[in-house]
Amino acid sequence: MNRIIRPTLLVNKSICIVNIDRMAKKAIRNHLTFRPHFKTHQSAEIGEWFREAGVNAITVSSVSMAHYFADHGWKDITIAFPCNILEISQINELASRIRLNLLVESTEVASFLANNIHSETGFFVKIDTGYHRTGIAPKDIPLLNSVLDAAETNKKLVFKGFLTHTGQTYQAGSLDEIRSLAIRAMETMSGLKEIFNPRFPGLTLSIGDTPSCSLLDEFPGIDEIRPGNFIFYDLMQYSIGSCTLDDIAVAIACPVVAVHPERNEAVIYGGAAHLSKESLMHEGKFVFGLAVKYDRNVWNCNIPFGFVTSLSQEHGIIRINKDVKLQSGELIAILPVHSCLAVHELCMNKVVIEER
Amino acid sequence: MNRIIRPTLLVNKSICIVNIDRMAKKAIRNHLTFRPHFKTHQSAEIGEWFREAGVNAITVSSVSMAHYFADHGWKDITIAFPCNILEISQINELASRIRLNLLVESTEVASFLANNIHSETGFFVKIDTGYHRTGIAPKDIPLLNSVLDAAETNKKLVFKGFLTHTGQTYQAGSLDEIRSLAIRAMETMSGLKEIFNPRFPGLTLSIGDTPSCSLLDEFPGIDEIRPGNFIFYDLMQYSIGSCTLDDIAVAIACPVVAVHPERNEAVIYGGAAHLSKESLMHEGKFVFGLAVKYDRNVWNCNIPFGFVTSLSQEHGIIRINKDVKLQSGELIAILPVHSCLAVHELCMNKVVIEER
Repeated sequence: MNRIIRPTLLVNKSICIVNIDRMAKKAIRNHLTFRPHFKTHQSAEIGEWFREAGVNAITVSSVSMAHYFADHGWKDITIAFPCNILEISQINELASRIRLNLLVESTEVASFLANNIHSETGFFVKIDTGYHRTGIAPKDIPLLNSVLDAAETNKKLVFKGFLTHTGQTYQAGSLDEIRSLAIRAMETMSGLKEIFNPRFPGLTLSIGDTPSCSLLDEFPGIDEIRPGNFIFYDLMQYSIGSCTLDDIAVAIACPVVAVHPERNEAVIYGGAAHLSKESLMHEGKFVFGLAVKYDRNVWNCNIPFGFVTSLSQEHGIIRINKDVKLQSGELIAILPVHSCLAVHELCMNKVVIEER
Repeated sequence: MNRIIRPTLLVNKSICIVNIDRMAKKAIRNHLTFRPHFKTHQSAEIGEWFREAGVNAITVSSVSMAHYFADHGWKDITIAFPCNILEISQINELASRIRLNLLVESTEVASFLANNIHSETGFFVKIDTGYHRTGIAPKDIPLLNSVLDAAETNKKLVFKGFLTHTGQTYQAGSLDEIRSLAIRAMETMSGLKEIFNPRFPGLTLSIGDTPSCSLLDEFPGIDEIRPGNFIFYDLMQYSIGSCTLDDIAVAIACPVVAVHPERNEAVIYGGAAHLSKESLMHEGKFVFGLAVKYDRNVWNCNIPFGFVTSLSQEHGIIRINKDVKLQSGELIAILPVHSCLAVHELCMNKVVIEER
């Protein structure tokens, strides 16, 4: 491989494979469809690692991403994002060649699709089990019926089931709270299945978020899981308790470009344009990543150098731990706060590492 | 032009031209070299608008960006980022074909360059006039002499002057405070010129940040300005007072994909992957953009719909103002908090609008 000279995404394939296998086995044990979210990596190459673990069905978050993966041989794709009706031509084109599922959460969109789809297209109804970002309140049975009635006017528009993203687990204060939020969401979903199963026998219940899927061992009543982040994990997941530092499969190699020992700071070439400005609170301050030792493609999370405390477009500032000495021209590795966004930034400039 | 169906950067060329001309004229009036920062737009096409305003010298923030603009005919480029010595081959290649200036802030890097550059290469010494991100403290005359001595061992490494980025203006609480911070920085720089001019006659003093360059009318003692953001401005600059809302020259057109009137929220296709997670405080809460009316390529900042209050990778949540009605499939425009980052995200998917 080429020598690294600028901010570069490092992907440790061995850790990814372990993370994929662990989740795939959990799905098999629980008789769940494993439909991983590919927005995390957005890479056909990395998609193949899932295929080798037996994955056939995937989740994405945009029509463009669905096109990209359809063009790389994926035949069963759920776009887990509220249907953007402006992309109806692209949706019809996709549905003509793969098994496509959309997400619907309003009567208007259900009617629009019923009037405009040309090929068989599946859809899930998005349920809000407490995250309050998108979805229909599970108690709103009239609205659910209205959506399903509107869709039913076109037999090519096939109701697949209910889908939720339990994103509220990201705000949980403890592992127990994550588990109880996830269990409550699964109970809510099961309640809906009981109500709608007579009309739609065999409907699917789909959940997906990395904290729940990482921390739960059982998924009572659920048919499908859609975690995405777990392939890489990150500092956010570590801070939640979904993973260990050793489970994190990506880091960003960055050159040190200036050192200011008088204020315990180093400046790296690696900014918002590479790491994204996703932050988390650490000891009352926002941090944007953790700097650790890097040596010939391997980062060592047991040798931390300090947190990234500030980001400009191209600059990152590291608050250096006591006794750490850095120098200009040295490479260090940054564990990202949110791997999905960091990978999005650097997907054109990545190195896959085979060894653990 | 094609119909917009997904998050798309809108660049209003007419507003850009006015913003460029205003700054170019201010530079001429003050006998300053106008060396605009091209990291804001990163676009050869937009670069031409500067050339038409008489600009020949530019600033960038990475060696890669310098290469890109050198390949598009720019012959005088300052990389206003601490020199990344790992890119020495690329630096030598560039210096062999254009007038290149680097940024140096340590004796180690000055020595490295003296030992490794092959063609004439200019350099500025970065001065920390109060932002405390990078640079040498102006009082540290021994260190400044040490850097200049180290560089002087190679006659091809030519000292051009002192450069500062008065980024502390972004934290100022009032226009008066911005002005006084900028004036203090200019006085500091002039003090250095007095000390070093006997040894380096005609050395250049270079400053650059959009708030100072927008708000000051005079730049006593200064030779060069390097603002970048002013071509587009954004909500951050508006909140600082550097511009009006009408001066903002970019917005992101986004489809509404869900509406939740029960909580005054709409969901757009437009997330951290399009707007970046740069935020500012508004009434005690972080906001990530301002949604305004959009109609056939024109956004109207006098018809605001509400702030973007939350961003996921692809989703944005708008808190809708009272009496605003939005619906799925409608396009709205988002004024970004930080145009440089939003433009970085969407530079591959942009539309240039000619009319005001």
